[in-house]
Amino acid sequence: MRNLLSIEDLSAEELSGLLDLAGNFAQVQQREVPKVPALRGKTVVLAFFEDSTRTRTSFDLAARRLSADVVNFSASQSSLKKGESLRDTVETIAAMGVDAIVVRHRSSGTPNQISKWTDAAVINAGDGWHQHPTQALLDAYTIRARLGSLEGKRIALCGDIAHSRVARSDAHAFAALGAEVILVAPRTMLPSSLAGWPVSVSHNLDQVIGDLDVAYLLRIQKERINDALFPSEREYRKLFGLTADRCRQLKPDAMIMHPGPMNRGVEIDSIIADGAQSFIQKQVEMGVAVRMAVLDALARNLPGGNNSADGQSGANT
Amino acid sequence: MRNLLSIEDLSAEELSGLLDLAGNFAQVQQREVPKVPALRGKTVVLAFFEDSTRTRTSFDLAARRLSADVVNFSASQSSLKKGESLRDTVETIAAMGVDAIVVRHRSSGTPNQISKWTDAAVINAGDGWHQHPTQALLDAYTIRARLGSLEGKRIALCGDIAHSRVARSDAHAFAALGAEVILVAPRTMLPSSLAGWPVSVSHNLDQVIGDLDVAYLLRIQKERINDALFPSEREYRKLFGLTADRCRQLKPDAMIMHPGPMNRGVEIDSIIADGAQSFIQKQVEMGVAVRMAVLDALARNLPGGNNSADGQSGANT
Amino acid sequence: MRNLLSIEDLSAEELSGLLDLAGNFAQVQQREVPKVPALRGKTVVLAFFEDSTRTRTSFDLAARRLSADVVNFSASQSSLKKGESLRDTVETIAAMGVDAIVVRHRSSGTPNQISKWTDAAVINAGDGWHQHPTQALLDAYTIRARLGSLEGKRIALCGDIAHSRVARSDAHAFAALGAEVILVAPRTMLPSSLAGWPVSVSHNLDQVIGDLDVAYLLRIQKERINDALFPSEREYRKLFGLTADRCRQLKPDAMIMHPGPMNRGVEIDSIIADGAQSFIQKQVEMGVAVRMAVLDALARNLPGGNNSADGQSGANT
Repeated sequence: MRNLLSIEDLSAEELSGLLDLAGNFAQVQQREVPKVPALRGKTVVLAFFEDSTRTRTSFDLAARRLSADVVNFSASQSSLKKGESLRDTVETIAAMGVDAIVVRHRSSGTPNQISKWTDAAVINAGDGWHQHPTQALLDAYTIRARLGSLEGKRIALCGDIAHSRVARSDAHAFAALGAEVILVAPRTMLPSSLAGWPVSVSHNLDQVIGDLDVAYLLRIQKERINDALFPSEREYRKLFGLTADRCRQLKPDAMIMHPGPMNRGVEIDSIIADGAQSFIQKQVEMGVAVRMAVLDALARNLPGGNNSADGQSGANT
Repeated sequence: MRNLLSIEDLSAEELSGLLDLAGNFAQVQQREVPKVPALRGKTVVLAFFEDSTRTRTSFDLAARRLSADVVNFSASQSSLKKGESLRDTVETIAAMGVDAIVVRHRSSGTPNQISKWTDAAVINAGDGWHQHPTQALLDAYTIRARLGSLEGKRIALCGDIAHSRVARSDAHAFAALGAEVILVAPRTMLPSSLAGWPVSVSHNLDQVIGDLDVAYLLRIQKERINDALFPSEREYRKLFGLTADRCRQLKPDAMIMHPGPMNRGVEIDSIIADGAQSFIQKQVEMGVAVRMAVLDALARNLPGGNNSADGQSGANT
Repeated sequence: MRNLLSIEDLSAEELSGLLDLAGNFAQVQQREVPKVPALRGKTVVLAFFEDSTRTRTSFDLAARRLSADVVNFSASQSSLKKGESLRDTVETIAAMGVDAIVVRHRSSGTPNQISKWTDAAVINAGDGWHQHPTQALLDAYTIRARLGSLEGKRIALCGDIAHSRVARSDAHAFAALGAEVILVAPRTMLPSSLAGWPVSVSHNLDQVIGDLDVAYLLRIQKERINDALFPSEREYRKLFGLTADRCRQLKPDAMIMHPGPMNRGVEIDSIIADGAQSFIQKQVEMGVAVRMAVLDALARNLPGGNNSADGQSGANT
């Protein structure tokens, strides 16, 4: 594992291994001083070409808790504005001695391109509608921590599948770990082809909700409503939102999840988002441990990587 | 003490205790390596929803000199722009394992609201026209360091009292520590009610200036002049500015203070701002030690706080 | 050496000494943990009033690898917007206990002014068309590392000399270290006077290219073409660009350099920029070691500087 570009690059064993490692780091987080020296002297660049708070901050804290030096690359201040090519910008940053580059970009495939231009480990922190692999890992981790395993669990991903990198990554991760994945969406919000998606499809949330172990609501982007993919927010909520009414059909131990930021009152009612079955805060909390695991695992494969710093030893230092 | 939201929440004893602790950290600042490990492994988030250089940088340095990890939260890059509620944004950041959140916001009361949504310690770094408690602490510290005590000292706060969070916090801190506080302002720049303010009022700087121990000039916001609270900058300077001429009426050992940024030539003449009686640079310098004291004191009360890291031991490590 | 404002302030011995020290830090960079404690507890402020990625990031990494605390000062968030003078802003930052201020500003001479207002070491990271001394040091270091010495080497600086702080700094550094410097430019892109420049001049790249040890291409700013200093980019490339055709006239061991960001296809062809004779990435790589040397050398002269932290000991700790 040189980079983390797509969740599809990982085998079920590799997925499970990363989740185990994340478990070690979740314990580190409980300590009085929640830090380990695993990446001391290593440099992690956060190259967010698209705005982000939660993912950027989560990676930032993960890297610092591994004792790495963190450099924020701000696209708005960059030479890109002076007409430099993305490749030259990346090669320049890499030449300064960088060990990992965390990339978010609005264009699908940009992290893959960047990985061809540098020896630094490249981590995809979300690219267009394509992939968001660390989100899938933290979602899988959160489910496994609660239910013991994803094996045989029934998980619905509900919302605008076509434009969601979270759905794409989650579907593959959950299926690889043995879950049954159901996409629940209006026809206008499904990809034109589902070839290669290990999923079934429903257009009716009420028909499937009673059998779910996990109801995963996707953020509905208001501009999509304006793009006429759906008549109105109110109509969306009525048919696909997790309303307080609809929630009564859920099994009492089913989990409710959302990648954030939420549109309260559209895809999820406020009272449900804050209720006892909601694991939305837990997802955020687990995100830091999962990203520590990813950074640590990649650092061990770097040319100058410290091969003794396995998760166990990291967790013990 | 869980949070620092308003200077009015602190008793005279608590105020004095924080100033004593700041004194320890002022000594730490003189060292070859001006750092202590008091907040090692702790995470401090700087959430400045309003622009700031001096206060943000001062908190940033204070947290680093306590060995904390510092995360800058940039409102302009945040999910707030995607329509997320402030509450969800705060709860998301807090879920990542944050120990203290330093908040500046243009709306009075926002830090109080935020403190209800998180277990992290919340420090008000200025909210609207309401409060700026660390400014009041550093001002009190600067006066005490020079004059030994505030007891019985005569301090004028001069300028646009109505729109000043500094005046509101300073008046209460100075009075609690035994000073006599006089507000000097035109009628248009006084709050509609002074109920609860432990102060007297004057509309004539020349009448009070000769008896002062401290002349504290507030920043006059140019937009207020345009709002017709006062005829012109020139007229303001003539009546309420600390001009070189007017300064001759001051006692030779009286202190001149200002929270910055200054409008030189309006509320204070340049030659006075840079003169021997000016403590304006000293205020800035003391700000870092005072903020170290506040962060350290709050950190000791955190659920996972290191109760042995008192100021004394912090200063000795 | 209190500040680094202009390369012309350094004697040949001081230049060589800094390059030697940079050599030590280049070795530090090769280590498993590329850090030394030389600036532990020191605070370095990056005050970039003009956008920059490569220089800002390079100084940021250099300071962290010396274990300094780094504060980014963002002009756009600053009190300057509230009308504060640059002097008050600088004095305020300095009062917080800052050891070095790295300044980039669009006005020539601003770093010099700033150095008069503070006891902190001031490093010029590029001011207008005036100076960019650390660029000259890293360029000289890169040449010396490859050719052993600059003594007697023939170096062409090619492009818009008049508007280039890099050309001004490089010409003096290279000449002081014994090189023969040739400016190659159209008449419209030369300064109105070359008094004090230790250089010869050519208007014809083809006449000089065959004898060069180093061909240093400057970035051509597209707005200059629009300012009518030159007819068109195509015409510029034809006469002054390092095209693949023209490159065949270079000696096979001549070095090709550029300060970046490049306009590929204008002042340099893409295939040449990425070719075997190009040291453009190497320049970036060496920049971090050179800036570590500058920060370390200045820190040793600070009032509270650790005089035992010489380069040798720094490299050995």
